[in-house]
Amino acid sequence: MLEIVRLALEEDIGAGDITTESCVPAARMARGRFLAREPFILAGTTVLEQLYGRIQLHKRDGEECAESEVFADVEGPARLLLTRERVALNFVQRLSGVATMARRFSDAVAGTDCRVLDTRKTTPGMRMLEKAAAAAGGIVNHRVGLFDAILIKNNHIAAAGGVRQALEDVRSANLPVEIEVRTREELREALENGATHLLLDNLTPAESADWIREIGGRAQVELSGGINLQTVRAYAETGADFVSSGAITHSARAVDISFRLELI
Amino acid sequence: MLEIVRLALEEDIGAGDITTESCVPAARMARGRFLAREPFILAGTTVLEQLYGRIQLHKRDGEECAESEVFADVEGPARLLLTRERVALNFVQRLSGVATMARRFSDAVAGTDCRVLDTRKTTPGMRMLEKAAAAAGGIVNHRVGLFDAILIKNNHIAAAGGVRQALEDVRSANLPVEIEVRTREELREALENGATHLLLDNLTPAESADWIREIGGRAQVELSGGINLQTVRAYAETGADFVSSGAITHSARAVDISFRLELI
Amino acid sequence: MLEIVRLALEEDIGAGDITTESCVPAARMARGRFLAREPFILAGTTVLEQLYGRIQLHKRDGEECAESEVFADVEGPARLLLTRERVALNFVQRLSGVATMARRFSDAVAGTDCRVLDTRKTTPGMRMLEKAAAAAGGIVNHRVGLFDAILIKNNHIAAAGGVRQALEDVRSANLPVEIEVRTREELREALENGATHLLLDNLTPAESADWIREIGGRAQVELSGGINLQTVRAYAETGADFVSSGAITHSARAVDISFRLELI
Amino acid sequence: MLEIVRLALEEDIGAGDITTESCVPAARMARGRFLAREPFILAGTTVLEQLYGRIQLHKRDGEECAESEVFADVEGPARLLLTRERVALNFVQRLSGVATMARRFSDAVAGTDCRVLDTRKTTPGMRMLEKAAAAAGGIVNHRVGLFDAILIKNNHIAAAGGVRQALEDVRSANLPVEIEVRTREELREALENGATHLLLDNLTPAESADWIREIGGRAQVELSGGINLQTVRAYAETGADFVSSGAITHSARAVDISFRLELI
Amino acid sequence: MLEIVRLALEEDIGAGDITTESCVPAARMARGRFLAREPFILAGTTVLEQLYGRIQLHKRDGEECAESEVFADVEGPARLLLTRERVALNFVQRLSGVATMARRFSDAVAGTDCRVLDTRKTTPGMRMLEKAAAAAGGIVNHRVGLFDAILIKNNHIAAAGGVRQALEDVRSANLPVEIEVRTREELREALENGATHLLLDNLTPAESADWIREIGGRAQVELSGGINLQTVRAYAETGADFVSSGAITHSARAVDISFRLELI
Amino acid sequence: MLEIVRLALEEDIGAGDITTESCVPAARMARGRFLAREPFILAGTTVLEQLYGRIQLHKRDGEECAESEVFADVEGPARLLLTRERVALNFVQRLSGVATMARRFSDAVAGTDCRVLDTRKTTPGMRMLEKAAAAAGGIVNHRVGLFDAILIKNNHIAAAGGVRQALEDVRSANLPVEIEVRTREELREALENGATHLLLDNLTPAESADWIREIGGRAQVELSGGINLQTVRAYAETGADFVSSGAITHSARAVDISFRLELI
Repeated sequence: MLEIVRLALEEDIGAGDITTESCVPAARMARGRFLAREPFILAGTTVLEQLYGRIQLHKRDGEECAESEVFADVEGPARLLLTRERVALNFVQRLSGVATMARRFSDAVAGTDCRVLDTRKTTPGMRMLEKAAAAAGGIVNHRVGLFDAILIKNNHIAAAGGVRQALEDVRSANLPVEIEVRTREELREALENGATHLLLDNLTPAESADWIREIGGRAQVELSGGINLQTVRAYAETGADFVSSGAITHSARAVDISFRLELI
Repeated sequence: MLEIVRLALEEDIGAGDITTESCVPAARMARGRFLAREPFILAGTTVLEQLYGRIQLHKRDGEECAESEVFADVEGPARLLLTRERVALNFVQRLSGVATMARRFSDAVAGTDCRVLDTRKTTPGMRMLEKAAAAAGGIVNHRVGLFDAILIKNNHIAAAGGVRQALEDVRSANLPVEIEVRTREELREALENGATHLLLDNLTPAESADWIREIGGRAQVELSGGINLQTVRAYAETGADFVSSGAITHSARAVDISFRLELI
Repeated sequence: MLEIVRLALEEDIGAGDITTESCVPAARMARGRFLAREPFILAGTTVLEQLYGRIQLHKRDGEECAESEVFADVEGPARLLLTRERVALNFVQRLSGVATMARRFSDAVAGTDCRVLDTRKTTPGMRMLEKAAAAAGGIVNHRVGLFDAILIKNNHIAAAGGVRQALEDVRSANLPVEIEVRTREELREALENGATHLLLDNLTPAESADWIREIGGRAQVELSGGINLQTVRAYAETGADFVSSGAITHSARAVDISFRLELI
Repeated sequence: MLEIVRLALEEDIGAGDITTESCVPAARMARGRFLAREPFILAGTTVLEQLYGRIQLHKRDGEECAESEVFADVEGPARLLLTRERVALNFVQRLSGVATMARRFSDAVAGTDCRVLDTRKTTPGMRMLEKAAAAAGGIVNHRVGLFDAILIKNNHIAAAGGVRQALEDVRSANLPVEIEVRTREELREALENGATHLLLDNLTPAESADWIREIGGRAQVELSGGINLQTVRAYAETGADFVSSGAITHSARAVDISFRLELI
Repeated sequence: MLEIVRLALEEDIGAGDITTESCVPAARMARGRFLAREPFILAGTTVLEQLYGRIQLHKRDGEECAESEVFADVEGPARLLLTRERVALNFVQRLSGVATMARRFSDAVAGTDCRVLDTRKTTPGMRMLEKAAAAAGGIVNHRVGLFDAILIKNNHIAAAGGVRQALEDVRSANLPVEIEVRTREELREALENGATHLLLDNLTPAESADWIREIGGRAQVELSGGINLQTVRAYAETGADFVSSGAITHSARAVDISFRLELI
Repeated sequence: MLEIVRLALEEDIGAGDITTESCVPAARMARGRFLAREPFILAGTTVLEQLYGRIQLHKRDGEECAESEVFADVEGPARLLLTRERVALNFVQRLSGVATMARRFSDAVAGTDCRVLDTRKTTPGMRMLEKAAAAAGGIVNHRVGLFDAILIKNNHIAAAGGVRQALEDVRSANLPVEIEVRTREELREALENGATHLLLDNLTPAESADWIREIGGRAQVELSGGINLQTVRAYAETGADFVSSGAITHSARAVDISFRLELI
């Protein structure tokens, strides 16, 4: 079981579900149905499998659920179904919210050459699940964590003593290195010292376009900062290769799902 | 350390922060400053203490931070500060978002006799932290999980075979028992069988007021379903004792905070 | 991350991979290739995704890998690749062994109406992964654990005081109940008291066929005990609905895979 | 939940509290009262909140409880209260013991300019809780672990090849560095190479005073080794800035607390 | 690895041992020696094996170490040895303290027919380790937790509604049941209803002897409450079968051990 | 409790053992007997102690069990015994399989000067348990993980830039360093640069003997690759100091054990 799923169960159930233990006998079997109460992009079904062992999925991650559509059915002990209902919903509602938000971002840049990236601004403990949900929604996953790619941000540059030194420190890498540049001078220094990916943070679309012209294809460009559903199209049309937005994960709204229990 | 904090560190750092290990020597010390980039109610500082060991807090949970205000400073190894920056922000931005949302709900019902409750619709793994953040924002905590109070919902009533039987099943309790009622008939059956707290779900404010008149003080009343910042005042003025809203935790937006590293 | 993956990393890496830390700089990037050294059915690729964040899969779980075929490539920090190599192999070699064994069982009963089931005789900590591997190999998953289905075994019958009483104890269940019967008398008692699934343990194929004739379709039949690749066909031809074998998981041989590191 | 709290519950409850499950129905509610049976300084109430969800505290950490005083009340399911009683007591009795010991050390040096520090000689798994308890008792927390401050002990000096080299190795630090010195020669070498904090271990008070005279304010001084409630005053009067004692955490006696269950 | 050992490592090392990483190269090998600085009964060596992988033990759990005796040697990377030193000592010092205390209790009752029991008043997270240490010291382990034996205490009696009812509730048990009795009336009621083990709490030795005379061998007797090294002999001579004391685990003093690092 | 034991319990029991909870009352006590159904070398009894608290062992790890022999008895609550039966068997069957395989390898080289080593090809999460089982079977434990010894394999040599450089990188080590050599040239380079232990992988016995003659005692030699019960004797007679085989752990067959429940 994913640790985050175990944690969610522990904090909700603790010493036992006293209502269910009082009202429902251990051997009572039942069916539970997951019902969309608004349209959304589904994600998080892997958690349902972990919670219930076996479940019948009518939709898969990344598919759209219509309002009133049943997307999953589970049969099993009624106590199991009732006791894990809230945890199941908390995961799937949140993750489907991320997938739905990702789909909107992806749609917003359709037709440009720019792709949307997610970030590390994910819900604590849910990094892999939210990365998968964002991908199911149609955007591209950026690095998973601090361990799988090099990204030199302004704090690293300061600690290293400048752009040149920071790039020197990672010279042994033979794969692309991304570095954040904040001034035209840092930009030139980065290009002269072998940077292949540049991160430009907190520029306007117009400023971004101007910087990208100067870069002139010598490196790939990612824009970040202030990018939301309203602004993402303008940034995508600057010629950037990527735009990244933390809002996909850190501020997605939970979608509305209900769980119907049927005794059988 | 809270398990959710360990998980968040593991998923972000994994095999190591290769950028920081490449650019920053182990013995370099630094200072980091947490800076509010918009006004919000602070929450989650206990996580900062767990992440850094020692930290200097200028504000406490529940206090308001103004834009550009530094609310915490931490001194320590630069690697520690850099490697844990993202996790620290992910927690505090989210939890302060919950506290800020809770404050808005609390303000919205000011002057009525109705109090706002949170729910179990919390972020997986963050139940206790989000409960504390909501309380710091000024609302009242409902039960923590399935283990610390009895709440008979419609699925339990179905599994037990009716309102009367469900209340019978929990008769040995000598503390208040809350039960969800969905029809006037269930309402009367609940009152006749000793329910002391009633949950009314998905009514309009007008319907709620009508039901509450019938109850006539014979039980405490909680309203839930469709309650958000726009509607909460109307529900609070129905005469209900409590209104509860999952939006406080499941759809709060992360507030904007930056982390400034200073070499010293 | 799955807890079992975290555990495997912790026990292998502990205080650090001293060889790799001594020989390989933090910023060195590399490519690793997973190469089949014998033909097998692939399983466990979800673990590779958890270990490396991003990986390029050329085959999916349940597909056959030929000898010398590269089924996955991963690019990233050389330290990450080297340090997690053994853990990655330990998982994929074992899980592909399970999938390969499951495929052999499945092939052995092809053309009969009998289906092969796995059991709870799985490697500690790997229940879900081995269930998925067995399914990828083509057999049917039995219950996941003690929580998701009722199976009354001889020890339960003894503790309950007989077949009749045990079936009475689970009467509130409205879904099928499986019960182990060890004598003809228990068989009749089970059928008279509503059992819908019968487990016959440690019979010969001839005995099984005889019992199944007496049951005459009044209940579904599962055979277990002494079922291996040599005997499974004979058991499948008795008219049983299911045969189950712990050997699929508890005694599968690890397949041979090598990991080639290429500096790039 | 803190991991150490989860562990304590798991090891005590395991497969279930068979006495309570046999004697007490799931829906029975009750009140539990925590009663001091001797005077002490309270600590560890955060664990009570984690164990019970909601609890009414009449005293806070760091406050003194008189004999026979009730410092906390909790209402909830009787099973919850009974099953978690022993774990709750094991934490609060131990942590209050630490706070009480810390208060005695703090009182013993009152009026001097010397402050008492705790150490890393804490109970496994309880570092943060014991640090908080010691602070509640009135002493100053030393570093939390190996990660948040540099302290060069004699084994590091040996491994580095001498005082000079060890201080050279941490030169990039721009914050104070503490180093243990065991001879006058090491002392001089440390002062000449920029040490700002010195640790003197296992000296008598008279020896300590003599060394401190030689140091003459060029560095801060911490004394450790052989410091207990009987000797701490003498060490505090040597002119040292700090004295540290492992006894505060590794040998504190559990205070006497009882838990009274009242059915309501 | 035991979870408590992992926790202890995590809380001490956190983001890394910055002193050791700065002063000691990854490939430096060394030898560490564990040296008794006072006489004690050894316990906890299983933790040393978990921390270091391989270790050479000169003494085993339950054996006595003399002052200045080296009881264990470990060879390995110097970083490993230094970074895990404090955690190793925290465990072995505490557990040997428990074993030493247990030996004193055991010696104190030598020659009587009474045996000393430990309790569930153990350090959170260390139940199994402390039980093993107490047994190594020579006393008898009481139940491990709430799950492996029935012990009806006064709170259970209250919740069940009296001694008779509580014993009725556990009637299906066919093994001995222990029950706490607090009055002569409860004593008689317990004996009449089949109790085979009685717990008498907080009596003086004289009172205990008087109760035991009345019991007259009809049940086994355990005395608890107020039993320490000074009083245990008097209680043991009352004719009781067992005396139990929480002091063995909750108030044992850590013994003094040092760790000597030798470069080789 | 070992984390792997907790995981195994969680995945098997999950929300509860619904069959046992339905058929067996909480206070029913019972005895369980572990019975060998084939001859094997016992291992894993430490897990039984963790699962049951107290258990009576008639054999110890490393001893041989005859067919039909009872090697352990446990008394306790029937629910506990039934619910943990499968997990107990899964551990002991697997670990005894490892011990039995290790004994066969050990017997196969009897009379030679060569010793058998295990590897890191262990079941995820069971490293320490399988190392102990292998040792109980009579073979020698190789390093536990990446943290406790240096072993330079061909991927490290590639990343370091050659044998000479790799040995240079670990020069600060003062203990033996093992290095894998794949050509005669690498062999000579390793010997010239101070290697004291050589790993020869995937040679035939004849080739191995030839290389070992060239080495002529200047370093210790370990052979690996293609070593199984059929070939191990031939490799052991080449003059090698050690042969290592992953098959001891990664492909051991579970031995046959049954658990008999007796109501008492």
